[in-house]
Amino acid sequence: MKNFTSVYDIDNLQNIIAKALKIKENPLENPTKGKGKTIGLVFLNSSLRTRLSSQIAAQNLGLNVLVLNAAQEAWNLEFADGTVMNGDTVEHIKDAIEVLNQYCDIIAVRCFAGMKNKEDDVNESILSQFLKHAKVPVVSLESATRHPLQSLADCITITENWPFDKLKINRKPKVVLTWAPHIKPIAQAVGNSFTEWMQQMDVDFVITNPEGYDLDKNFTKETPVIHNQEQALKDADFIYVKNWSSFDDYANMPKVEGDWMLTNEKLEVTNQAKVMHCLPVRRNLELSDEVMDGKNSIIYQQAKNRIFSAQAVFSEILDELNKC
Amino acid sequence: MKNFTSVYDIDNLQNIIAKALKIKENPLENPTKGKGKTIGLVFLNSSLRTRLSSQIAAQNLGLNVLVLNAAQEAWNLEFADGTVMNGDTVEHIKDAIEVLNQYCDIIAVRCFAGMKNKEDDVNESILSQFLKHAKVPVVSLESATRHPLQSLADCITITENWPFDKLKINRKPKVVLTWAPHIKPIAQAVGNSFTEWMQQMDVDFVITNPEGYDLDKNFTKETPVIHNQEQALKDADFIYVKNWSSFDDYANMPKVEGDWMLTNEKLEVTNQAKVMHCLPVRRNLELSDEVMDGKNSIIYQQAKNRIFSAQAVFSEILDELNKC
Amino acid sequence: MKNFTSVYDIDNLQNIIAKALKIKENPLENPTKGKGKTIGLVFLNSSLRTRLSSQIAAQNLGLNVLVLNAAQEAWNLEFADGTVMNGDTVEHIKDAIEVLNQYCDIIAVRCFAGMKNKEDDVNESILSQFLKHAKVPVVSLESATRHPLQSLADCITITENWPFDKLKINRKPKVVLTWAPHIKPIAQAVGNSFTEWMQQMDVDFVITNPEGYDLDKNFTKETPVIHNQEQALKDADFIYVKNWSSFDDYANMPKVEGDWMLTNEKLEVTNQAKVMHCLPVRRNLELSDEVMDGKNSIIYQQAKNRIFSAQAVFSEILDELNKC
Repeated sequence: MKNFTSVYDIDNLQNIIAKALKIKENPLENPTKGKGKTIGLVFLNSSLRTRLSSQIAAQNLGLNVLVLNAAQEAWNLEFADGTVMNGDTVEHIKDAIEVLNQYCDIIAVRCFAGMKNKEDDVNESILSQFLKHAKVPVVSLESATRHPLQSLADCITITENWPFDKLKINRKPKVVLTWAPHIKPIAQAVGNSFTEWMQQMDVDFVITNPEGYDLDKNFTKETPVIHNQEQALKDADFIYVKNWSSFDDYANMPKVEGDWMLTNEKLEVTNQAKVMHCLPVRRNLELSDEVMDGKNSIIYQQAKNRIFSAQAVFSEILDELNKC
Repeated sequence: MKNFTSVYDIDNLQNIIAKALKIKENPLENPTKGKGKTIGLVFLNSSLRTRLSSQIAAQNLGLNVLVLNAAQEAWNLEFADGTVMNGDTVEHIKDAIEVLNQYCDIIAVRCFAGMKNKEDDVNESILSQFLKHAKVPVVSLESATRHPLQSLADCITITENWPFDKLKINRKPKVVLTWAPHIKPIAQAVGNSFTEWMQQMDVDFVITNPEGYDLDKNFTKETPVIHNQEQALKDADFIYVKNWSSFDDYANMPKVEGDWMLTNEKLEVTNQAKVMHCLPVRRNLELSDEVMDGKNSIIYQQAKNRIFSAQAVFSEILDELNKC
Repeated sequence: MKNFTSVYDIDNLQNIIAKALKIKENPLENPTKGKGKTIGLVFLNSSLRTRLSSQIAAQNLGLNVLVLNAAQEAWNLEFADGTVMNGDTVEHIKDAIEVLNQYCDIIAVRCFAGMKNKEDDVNESILSQFLKHAKVPVVSLESATRHPLQSLADCITITENWPFDKLKINRKPKVVLTWAPHIKPIAQAVGNSFTEWMQQMDVDFVITNPEGYDLDKNFTKETPVIHNQEQALKDADFIYVKNWSSFDDYANMPKVEGDWMLTNEKLEVTNQAKVMHCLPVRRNLELSDEVMDGKNSIIYQQAKNRIFSAQAVFSEILDELNKC
């Protein structure tokens, strides 16, 4: 694996899920694979799970880890090419990346959508600079439009909870991505990314969201988008809860009819669906306490699988680097 | 040891002091005891000594260390149960703790008193959530009402300076905890905690503070509280200097008569008392430069012992974990 | 080596450059030299290169690394001696240093010029406290008047690009330090420091800056200072680009005639000069995109050499410590 920024960087999804599940059985089976190599974890945004799980995964492989909270610890970054830097920005992102090239064997970066300029976000204005200027592998720790390490962890978690091959279940699981309420405009990255990965999984996948909240067609493609949540949830085996703001009316929050918060009552029409969320979650807004703390939730299992998702990816990248 | 949040988590105080002193002689005698295990150091508040000494202690034992400055690096936390999270808070503390459960073998947390609501602080509104939701051992790096790693370091330091068993000193040392001036309302945690630990030590212990500044009776119990500083300091062998705000008139600062700053002049009535402080200290407000920099101060020795206090505690917790 | 705060802490410049170049060939040749020892990297200011390269250098030697972002993570520091600390400052720098003495085998510190009081900066009001109170070796990660790890990296880079001994070049290279425009008052530390180190190298060294921007005579000494940039650049082999504010009219920015930004056009009079900058650089203000991204730039190579500069210094300090 050269870079890891979307599902399209994976050769074989089933293989990497299997690999991650094997790592989960014995996370320390390759404690020196990363020996003498350095991964830089660059955070342009807040992080809890990604920050900790990436460090653990890297340490399990013997990688040296550098954590850089770029905004607080380094210099205010310029992202526009060709600009005369006579304002607030002190260092151009491409110079920072060229320096990271000198210091790191792998660069991992979190760069959220700015939510101000649709084109910038759609074009991954920051991640694209990393992909352009990095001379070492780049791993996305969530970018403007995708959160692939989360999505891989989601696939691992679904696989653990739906024994595709072990039991004689002669049908695919039904997986529903359902929009949830929020108070602020949130990026579509997790929704887009989960969609892309589900399209590669052997599942029946549907999305449900209010009108005005359809995700970018470039991600949803042939996936059914249903505007009636109850109808979508019917017979669901897995429900993924996530808020996002409007893509068409970019970064705005059109008025929504009805209450989209996931509750135990809404679970009644499902096939005892397992409930998923990438966290952080706003309780009693996106989903109720009773769902979060109930027996259907596999949300903390998902969080744990972030370690093995990251470790599988770092491991494949190290395999490639160690070939050279 | 399962958790470490107060003196009551210690089986035998003399044993753990002896253990810490043995570690001090050779901090690297068990460099792989924590191998393959991870400690998460979660800071909800500022820290210098605790931050660094905990990292050193953990590294000395071969533990992987994750440091999380929660407020700056992760998400704004909600502490109230059952709330509809439609405000400024992004993640509920109990979800953050459940995630830490997935990632860490030991969770250590610093969570100061909020100093706004007495009941919240007395009930340890934050630490109690960790104790309730953590599935791994919890270590307090100072909570609303106690600072046990500091208090253990204090006991180690007193032991080093009063050779209880080696010399034929046929009396207990007199230890005085004296209130000191400050300009802001400060929590009672260090005072409470030192009191609890001194009650377990073989010392004569008294507290002196201005009227209106008596510590919580649940901590002071039978310990004499004297409102005349000079009288209290008479014949002292150890003086612990610390400010705290009023407990009765919670988090306020009732008017104080006289000057409570510790000076060399005040030391004259003592038995050449050793002077202690947990740091940080406001010079020439809590105590004078001449005391801080004088021959009576054992304050930096105290700071050093924070390493061995933490290492003894982590080591006992690892013994417990390694049993399983 | 006891401390490293300027070129005067080096026994033999050629030896340490050679040592650094040897480390560059095999950074992991002494992976246990620092075993069981701890370096504290204390940042009172922002840092990218210094932060990361110091960590890598220390890890390459097997040192434990503690990173402390003092302002954000610890306590607001007091720098004035004898003051009554009844204001915003919570901990005196000398107490913080005494604590670091207890925890670290080497203390490295970044403490920029405050740019408010000339005397404070000239006298290194912060670094001098470290030198006074530290009981372990002190390494400057840039202080008010010098940036010696950068300057050593600069010497390494010039040596790599001017094979003094390998080729029969019968002349010294001409090295020009040229002032560059900026929008804010910037410290003279990099300029001063580069000047000091070039004075020890076997090069022809000149400085060019606008009138009113001459560096402190205590640093420039006999080095020619030319106020005509074009004249200074003539036949240059190396050009070091850096802004600084006025020393005489301290921390101010007297009006400048002409455009001092380095462009390809200005390079025409040089001997195909290599262009250097310590980074971060403001593109199209200090130098043009075409220079930064052109074939003359050795700026990223300089950044990489920060690792080996730090590693050579830490290694010499460890040699000294390991003697004891």
